[in-house]
Amino acid sequence: MDVTYNFSAGPAAFIPGVVADICDAMTCGGAETEYGSDAYRALYTETADELRALVGIPQNYRIIFMPGGSSVQYSAVPMNLLTARRCADYVISGKLSKSACLEAKKYGDIAIAASSAGANPVFSTVPETKRADFRPDADYVHICFNNPIYGTKFHYIPDVGNLPLVADMTACLLSEPVDVSKFGVIYADGMTNIGAPGMSVVIIREDLLGNARADIPAHMNYKLLSEGEGGCPPALLLMMAKRVFEKTASVGGLEEMKRRNERKACLLYDYFDTMSYYTAPIDRKCRSMTNIVFVTGDAALDRKFVTEARECGLTNLMGDPSVGGMRASLYNSMPYEGVEALLSFMRKFSMENPKF
Amino acid sequence: MDVTYNFSAGPAAFIPGVVADICDAMTCGGAETEYGSDAYRALYTETADELRALVGIPQNYRIIFMPGGSSVQYSAVPMNLLTARRCADYVISGKLSKSACLEAKKYGDIAIAASSAGANPVFSTVPETKRADFRPDADYVHICFNNPIYGTKFHYIPDVGNLPLVADMTACLLSEPVDVSKFGVIYADGMTNIGAPGMSVVIIREDLLGNARADIPAHMNYKLLSEGEGGCPPALLLMMAKRVFEKTASVGGLEEMKRRNERKACLLYDYFDTMSYYTAPIDRKCRSMTNIVFVTGDAALDRKFVTEARECGLTNLMGDPSVGGMRASLYNSMPYEGVEALLSFMRKFSMENPKF
Repeated sequence: MDVTYNFSAGPAAFIPGVVADICDAMTCGGAETEYGSDAYRALYTETADELRALVGIPQNYRIIFMPGGSSVQYSAVPMNLLTARRCADYVISGKLSKSACLEAKKYGDIAIAASSAGANPVFSTVPETKRADFRPDADYVHICFNNPIYGTKFHYIPDVGNLPLVADMTACLLSEPVDVSKFGVIYADGMTNIGAPGMSVVIIREDLLGNARADIPAHMNYKLLSEGEGGCPPALLLMMAKRVFEKTASVGGLEEMKRRNERKACLLYDYFDTMSYYTAPIDRKCRSMTNIVFVTGDAALDRKFVTEARECGLTNLMGDPSVGGMRASLYNSMPYEGVEALLSFMRKFSMENPKF
Repeated sequence: MDVTYNFSAGPAAFIPGVVADICDAMTCGGAETEYGSDAYRALYTETADELRALVGIPQNYRIIFMPGGSSVQYSAVPMNLLTARRCADYVISGKLSKSACLEAKKYGDIAIAASSAGANPVFSTVPETKRADFRPDADYVHICFNNPIYGTKFHYIPDVGNLPLVADMTACLLSEPVDVSKFGVIYADGMTNIGAPGMSVVIIREDLLGNARADIPAHMNYKLLSEGEGGCPPALLLMMAKRVFEKTASVGGLEEMKRRNERKACLLYDYFDTMSYYTAPIDRKCRSMTNIVFVTGDAALDRKFVTEARECGLTNLMGDPSVGGMRASLYNSMPYEGVEALLSFMRKFSMENPKF
């Protein structure tokens, strides 16, 4: 096989056309756009405008691009959103939401409103929540909308009443349409569908700005950042994101991404459901469309699978070390042909390695 | 003129060979190296080892690569280094050191040990300091070693006794040899000589790790970061830095960079000293080798200069808005020919625009 397909959970593979554009830009100086210059500000605004149009972000939401990944947001969210009450509720659906929760505990009274840690296997589903699970005086409720380690995704938007819902959408933003108005804050690492590893995007409802604690580092202050102060990503990363947004819009936007991603994911899930060699060890209704976790049920066989797949040009299929098994991340840059190649390898591997 | 020379203070122009290598890496998947993978860890370690060899960083210093620019360090330094005493001294030599100082004041008892704000023009020199200027119980002393806005640079290393000296070397690291052992911490934004905008490097003496305040965001905790936890830059940016370090070493290292940078800077400074049309409005002994600030003495003429230079392919020569005039940043990626082209334009401009 001459082509390589990269199934990494992050950074995602680059979209080939975007790479060529960025290389052109680097070669002719465009990626060197000076911080603070008119050209930089225009690039920032255009990138935000592209994202706004693509996702359908209402006008009362600000868009912020920040250096660093989603882990920056684990502390930025509580430092920006906790008010004098300093109280927030977290829904725990995996390791990432646990990390976010642990970080938030440095800054206030953080409660776990619901958790699927007790599921078997651990985190193989997302918690079912109801409005009464959340404290009425919480400053916000935090969820991780898609859990790339376990291959699960919220199949519903929790009813949090009037509380601001904050969602880590790192591994799912741009994979399908989302009703932004249901959320107070959406944030996502640039390393997946956004296609700009090293930065993250924050989409925040305007009325939530301005509550940051006095000692918040300036580079994490959403209000300052939304006003163009405090720091910003280099032009190189903004250009990468902008090209991805443009290309995504040009092929049909998020409805088309949803159609493509469902088609890719179903290719694998349908195979799991009809053949028993591989299984997706999670609750069916919470299946992620972007991170497909599966196992053979034999850890040694799983390792053999990952190694042989790599030799066939199907790379980064190893599951997260904390759960083992395999994981195929099917972000927007993964073509249907890549999933077909994986399926074909899976069939071949299952025939060559019969289980007893 | 077909060639364009970019004199921006940041991000610096990319080194052409590095751009080609990075584009190759992006095209064939190298820049997608998965976070946390063996390949990523190897890349991180190799990049650090290259920097250690290039700069001659002693073994008792750790090297950390972090997402974000130098402004992240403005808060990271006090959050990591202030101990129970919570007291540090800042030397103010320009707008950037003022920003660093202002940020630090959120976290402790911060004193201004010395300042050149009163110079005429403002910040046209760096403060002369003596050991008695610093509080003996300060946790550290902070300086900005090169001030890109004013075109000044410390011509000496302040004597701080046993106190750890923390230096922002954003616009000068890699431009000449530096005795790291004289410093407790050196940090630099990746956007200048390091050639990786969007990340910064921190070089820290091991004994200074472990004093971070309890509520420091994990992604800013030097100790965690030095142990591979808390966050890291994308492979793309590490690869850019690594290639720059390799290329710099391959042409002769920092001694050669110093020779080249002095030769470039002298071309301009010698011209200022022999002709009176342009002047560098700063103290001679503090002249920066990397950021050459100059004026005609007539603000309208300065603007005309910047505009006409741009039309001739000499870009980003406008001085910082706070000081006006012109600024030519001569980072390692700026070839001698670029400075010759600038000088040639300067001569022509002075003849076409006589002053009375």
